[in-house]
Amino acid sequence: PKHTAASRLRLSGLCFLLQILNILLFAVFVRYSQESSPGRCPPQLNCSRRNQGSGFQQPRFQDVHIQVLLSFGLLVAFLGCYGPSSAAISILIIAFAIQWAVLIQGFFFSFLNGKIYVGAQSMVSADFCTSAVLISTGAVLGRVNPVQMLLLALLEVILGTLNEYILLSLMGVSDSGRSLTVHTFGAYFGLMVSRVLYQPHKDKRKREELQDMGHQTDVFAVVGTIYVWIFWPSFTSTTSVHGNAESWAVLNSYFSLVASTIATFIISPVLYEESTPWMVLIQHATLAGVAVMGMAGEMLVTPFGALITGFLAGLISPLGFRFFSPVLHSRLHIQDTCGVHNIHGLPGILGALLGTLLTLLATADTYGDRLDLVFPLVAQGSRTVTDQAFIQLSALPLTLLLAVLGGCLTGEL
Amino acid sequence: PKHTAASRLRLSGLCFLLQILNILLFAVFVRYSQESSPGRCPPQLNCSRRNQGSGFQQPRFQDVHIQVLLSFGLLVAFLGCYGPSSAAISILIIAFAIQWAVLIQGFFFSFLNGKIYVGAQSMVSADFCTSAVLISTGAVLGRVNPVQMLLLALLEVILGTLNEYILLSLMGVSDSGRSLTVHTFGAYFGLMVSRVLYQPHKDKRKREELQDMGHQTDVFAVVGTIYVWIFWPSFTSTTSVHGNAESWAVLNSYFSLVASTIATFIISPVLYEESTPWMVLIQHATLAGVAVMGMAGEMLVTPFGALITGFLAGLISPLGFRFFSPVLHSRLHIQDTCGVHNIHGLPGILGALLGTLLTLLATADTYGDRLDLVFPLVAQGSRTVTDQAFIQLSALPLTLLLAVLGGCLTGEL
Amino acid sequence: PKHTAASRLRLSGLCFLLQILNILLFAVFVRYSQESSPGRCPPQLNCSRRNQGSGFQQPRFQDVHIQVLLSFGLLVAFLGCYGPSSAAISILIIAFAIQWAVLIQGFFFSFLNGKIYVGAQSMVSADFCTSAVLISTGAVLGRVNPVQMLLLALLEVILGTLNEYILLSLMGVSDSGRSLTVHTFGAYFGLMVSRVLYQPHKDKRKREELQDMGHQTDVFAVVGTIYVWIFWPSFTSTTSVHGNAESWAVLNSYFSLVASTIATFIISPVLYEESTPWMVLIQHATLAGVAVMGMAGEMLVTPFGALITGFLAGLISPLGFRFFSPVLHSRLHIQDTCGVHNIHGLPGILGALLGTLLTLLATADTYGDRLDLVFPLVAQGSRTVTDQAFIQLSALPLTLLLAVLGGCLTGEL
Repeated sequence: PKHTAASRLRLSGLCFLLQILNILLFAVFVRYSQESSPGRCPPQLNCSRRNQGSGFQQPRFQDVHIQVLLSFGLLVAFLGCYGPSSAAISILIIAFAIQWAVLIQGFFFSFLNGKIYVGAQSMVSADFCTSAVLISTGAVLGRVNPVQMLLLALLEVILGTLNEYILLSLMGVSDSGRSLTVHTFGAYFGLMVSRVLYQPHKDKRKREELQDMGHQTDVFAVVGTIYVWIFWPSFTSTTSVHGNAESWAVLNSYFSLVASTIATFIISPVLYEESTPWMVLIQHATLAGVAVMGMAGEMLVTPFGALITGFLAGLISPLGFRFFSPVLHSRLHIQDTCGVHNIHGLPGILGALLGTLLTLLATADTYGDRLDLVFPLVAQGSRTVTDQAFIQLSALPLTLLLAVLGGCLTGEL
Repeated sequence: PKHTAASRLRLSGLCFLLQILNILLFAVFVRYSQESSPGRCPPQLNCSRRNQGSGFQQPRFQDVHIQVLLSFGLLVAFLGCYGPSSAAISILIIAFAIQWAVLIQGFFFSFLNGKIYVGAQSMVSADFCTSAVLISTGAVLGRVNPVQMLLLALLEVILGTLNEYILLSLMGVSDSGRSLTVHTFGAYFGLMVSRVLYQPHKDKRKREELQDMGHQTDVFAVVGTIYVWIFWPSFTSTTSVHGNAESWAVLNSYFSLVASTIATFIISPVLYEESTPWMVLIQHATLAGVAVMGMAGEMLVTPFGALITGFLAGLISPLGFRFFSPVLHSRLHIQDTCGVHNIHGLPGILGALLGTLLTLLATADTYGDRLDLVFPLVAQGSRTVTDQAFIQLSALPLTLLLAVLGGCLTGEL
Repeated sequence: PKHTAASRLRLSGLCFLLQILNILLFAVFVRYSQESSPGRCPPQLNCSRRNQGSGFQQPRFQDVHIQVLLSFGLLVAFLGCYGPSSAAISILIIAFAIQWAVLIQGFFFSFLNGKIYVGAQSMVSADFCTSAVLISTGAVLGRVNPVQMLLLALLEVILGTLNEYILLSLMGVSDSGRSLTVHTFGAYFGLMVSRVLYQPHKDKRKREELQDMGHQTDVFAVVGTIYVWIFWPSFTSTTSVHGNAESWAVLNSYFSLVASTIATFIISPVLYEESTPWMVLIQHATLAGVAVMGMAGEMLVTPFGALITGFLAGLISPLGFRFFSPVLHSRLHIQDTCGVHNIHGLPGILGALLGTLLTLLATADTYGDRLDLVFPLVAQGSRTVTDQAFIQLSALPLTLLLAVLGGCLTGEL
């Protein structure tokens, strides 16, 4: 048989050790926060500035969970070139990474008197962290075994939280939809791990298998696309400030994904022989259209800006698949199973650049009360708009550097 | 190959032109409303009369999106007799129609000082308009190409909004669940387009293909039915007034769909050879059961009334498929791919007649405070109950006339 | 043909009679409550103690519906060893049981001046009751015909409501997540019916068919698992008291299901030959992990307690499948199509024992304000903690007794 008893029990044993470790660490450090959950929350979510009713908090929390589990779960599942066990592994990764992220994020952000106090907000942060891990696994899927996946999750949660801590807490970057800390970090981390684990003979097989499973894939892609349409705007706006800004973030995301969907219908017949694009391409474009809105979602002040940005993201993603992925593979020896570079990496960078541009253009006139919500340090006068824009821009190479170094390190291990 | 390069690029080019047009029109006319989105909303939604907390607004908005994309998307997808490209086309239609409907509805309802101010409410209205377009496409699916579909969407959004403007703003009709403006208008518009584009040889092939894909269809129908059960009651009550009335609209819809589901189990063994009905029939009955509650949902004051109405709708829909569709096809030369006449047309008319009856019976005693919410003009004394009932009734032939004329016009083009 | 005209029309006729009966009973007894729905609610939900905004109520209500229809629907659907008609029957059972439960629960809990006043809360209670019926049908699926299923639903709704009335209203047991009244009662009721209807030759066929449908099952199990992850925590906490307690119930459920999922990955390679567990096993573990949190969810005060409990539940469920189900079958002649004993029965008992233990440990110090919410009688001083713990414990054999007697009676009929 393919799986020997030893390898089977190794995964079982590793899960057992990690779970016992988690239980022990939880027993020593983690307590429920005594106040009602919306009241106390980790500082990276800036929730002290929001007026959260507890009735309001709950649906938001579930939307994020739906997002993480469903869209990403399906995203990986439909690319389950290696049979349904790929979905099982994703669920294992999610189950482990959520516990681990609650611990690690707790140590970084809410460690108080030797205890971590958790609430609904801690779960939301942990979910964000888990998304980055899932994006990374998308790049290496099919070339690493479950034990390696677990180790990747173990390390990426630590490094991703470190990156988040530097960007959000130390530098004061505005990145409510996590263009940088989730999409860009996750994509480049996974790509570097993939580079280190380069296996030339594996890639061809995968592509042939993908061709085989025509209809099955399409069904998953339809369901996946619909879920991204419905729930991602909430994802983008979960941690954005309450009031006007949040509503704008949701609307901007909708306009962006609508435009990127139509862009796919424009570019796809030019690149491929089919008259209507495959559902998978539509799903990719939809993801790219919302990834690009991560940072800029709460900043943009006109609907047509969102339409133009989404349109560009919808054009870049299929072009990347056609022209960039082969170069990446042949020159840089980076294999990218699910194309995370085109779906999350490039739109994430584009989103960060757009965020910088919009920060430069931000004035008290156009933003009104929202200036205090989107750029609190600028509104308080402790920073100029140019300083903030420079900091937003510098967060991009920093994230790339951390992701690349972390990915190399993890790949070597 | 089936699709020549020219036809492929024609769709691509049309999408490009329409998207550029949309971006330009958005750039010139559309701005985010400065107030928080719940505060400013188009008059056809009557939202000034509601006390909307912003925490309340968001989940409602998403329910409608779920409704539009998921139920309708799946409704069309499972009838994707022509392969998964049918789902792709539906998504293209949705992506275009939402942008276009925001523009057109903005011109009709919230054009102010040369600008359209949009918020979450504008998206909800645009979604309603998109539903009508999707119902219409259900009637012509498989007989028109994507370019024709886009033109159909372009025209139907304009005519549907005109119908909505006349009924809701000029005549003051109470139609919170859109029995008339979405279900009836969409169904008869699509049927007339289908009549003009009559192609006798196409229909037989479709039916045979439907027989083939047994299990696939059933899976989609199970998922579709469950979603209609869960989310349609929200759809019916999205724009109904807040407080008691909304809760009644939700409960009435639930009771109605429960009864119509059981009616299918009663009528189906009588009509067909199977002991349990196909899932597709159950889905149709469920849709009919909620379509009939569109107008009357917020009016009915007893649960057993909802049970009886749903029961009747559940009986009418399969009878229509069995006895009415063949007549429609052979005598009137109307082909109806998805049976929208039985699912949306007949229940919509039934719902409008029921709404008229209930308006006649409305008294201040039985309605209490809700009279002001359901029939504001009656409560203010500027109209008698009989006048309101007459106006409700006259909205039906008007909607039919507009739908038939618009469908003919669109079909000819 | 398999289904003769007589048997087809018998189901049709029974549905007709039952629906007419429902409509008549609704016409005589049921009215909408005049106050807004959150204000008036049946006493078993204890909702008078909560501060419910109406905006808050609505999403909760839908979550429960999603739970009932989707998770359970799919749970049964993927085990649809007997073709897609199994899903159709489930929907028929749901449609009938919801109406019937509204009536029966109304007679027990909110019968006032000869009328039952219903609101959104009545639908939630009816949904809970329907869940118990669906769990029971899982045990007998494939061995009873639809007519017998309807009779089972008819009787179980009455007996389940009687059990709920004794436990919640007369004895004052705290069982917010319904470990006892839904999971334990439903499982043992179904098992006893299965015992009475023992058919030795049927079981072997089922298992072989299960082996056949490999991939189809897995797709449903992935979707089912994701939905349980997302929505069950809401299910557990729907009727728990508002404020801290509810948030804790949600977080406890999440931690529990995360731990039980990992436990499956640990135990499954030891028991079976596969290196990664089948998706079905993951789904079972997830269900067991939340079923165990039913009673204790709002009581536990530490996250690591939830992790340990979930871990144990995740271990018990696969062990039960491997070692307990064969004994159950060969010695006690109980067939269990969907394994409800391992998924709902054992975790329900474990949850009840855990709830008793936690009640014993409850002190005013650790609970603070929540004592009044979780154990109102203790907080008021009319009961000691030991009394409450004894009552919690005695509810378990009482539920088992009622379920077993009821199941025997129903099976005989």
